[in-house]
Amino acid sequence: MHRTKVRIVEEALDANNTIAQANRADFDRAGVRVVNFMSAPGAGKTALLERVVADLPGVRVGVLEGDVQGSMDADRLASLHVPVTQLNTDAGFGGECHLDANMVRSALGELPLDDIDLLVIENVGNLVCPAEFRVGEDARIMVSSVTEGEEKPLKYPLMFRACELVLVNKIDLLPHLDFDLDRFLYNLDQVHPGVEHILVSAKTGEGIDEWRDWLVRVGSPAEAHV
Amino acid sequence: MHRTKVRIVEEALDANNTIAQANRADFDRAGVRVVNFMSAPGAGKTALLERVVADLPGVRVGVLEGDVQGSMDADRLASLHVPVTQLNTDAGFGGECHLDANMVRSALGELPLDDIDLLVIENVGNLVCPAEFRVGEDARIMVSSVTEGEEKPLKYPLMFRACELVLVNKIDLLPHLDFDLDRFLYNLDQVHPGVEHILVSAKTGEGIDEWRDWLVRVGSPAEAHV
Repeated sequence: MHRTKVRIVEEALDANNTIAQANRADFDRAGVRVVNFMSAPGAGKTALLERVVADLPGVRVGVLEGDVQGSMDADRLASLHVPVTQLNTDAGFGGECHLDANMVRSALGELPLDDIDLLVIENVGNLVCPAEFRVGEDARIMVSSVTEGEEKPLKYPLMFRACELVLVNKIDLLPHLDFDLDRFLYNLDQVHPGVEHILVSAKTGEGIDEWRDWLVRVGSPAEAHV
Repeated sequence: MHRTKVRIVEEALDANNTIAQANRADFDRAGVRVVNFMSAPGAGKTALLERVVADLPGVRVGVLEGDVQGSMDADRLASLHVPVTQLNTDAGFGGECHLDANMVRSALGELPLDDIDLLVIENVGNLVCPAEFRVGEDARIMVSSVTEGEEKPLKYPLMFRACELVLVNKIDLLPHLDFDLDRFLYNLDQVHPGVEHILVSAKTGEGIDEWRDWLVRVGSPAEAHV
């Protein structure tokens, strides 16, 4: 008798990862690169986007803005003539503290995928849960403000591990803080050895060129995936 | 025939509230007042506690320290000779981004309730979920750092509503920030009209006496509940 080979499913995906893969397939078909942009509340995600989204050579960018409620950040970015879609977790999703793959999927129909090369998904401000939910992105970026203290990588290690780039923001404030930058970078290296980082100030513009170049590299249509 | 009167349960409690009430009853029996201390990551909760816990006239204080993992904040406070209990959400609770009533209940046996008048529960740094879970506290305090921006009450309204006191921290940095304090207080009043607030700096000590007095008022054995 012919025996059927037993097939082993090696990685049982949870529902979120299944939907994240579907999102990713749709983004790939449209030729859109996607970054998931994460941080604690008030670390400066929107300010860092304002610095670059209107001037990304060769890259047409769109933004999916995640917030518990309101559209203040989306309004700021839309004023720069960048296509912005607002996704609120309050009404339909119970006030969730993060975006997940299904929320992003719900917004797919509202995204101008045919007209952009790069989609930046600005996540809800939170250092815990956003790191636990893939949404179909190519790369994850997190922002850590120097005002938050140098021990943050040790206290929220998953977030600092679950990213390809760390933007260390508000470095203009360093002279006024008891923040040990070397200690922060040491702590970062402890939880995510070798992860790329850029020191930036959305206020003074320091490091912004390097941040822009990074986004252009990820978002350029000719480039391979990260 | 005798008719039994139909009893109507007017407020169906969810499991968290049921356990929070049990916690509260235990705290009351022990004569311990409890505050739930909340903020975004890095807003300065631990630094503000360091400023006052060793010197609360007439109030014996203990701290329950909530973190995803590690005990860095607990170690800082323990060095001030205050009884500190660490509660990590990582190991047993799946890395939760907040404390809930059941987690606090799990720690009850480790708390020196007979030796303290006031228990400060330092929640996980997060501006969304901690506000959704009562843990059996008498009062809730939140810290908002001026580095986070003046629109935070509008973006995270539940957190700013679910507290009896807002500490506006890091005001020593105001000269170096584009932070409109009047606008922040206006926004705060929009989401929580009349809520008490204190401007503080854990660094310079400004406002710390008022913050200490507030805690003493809440924690004094002779006082009624807030």
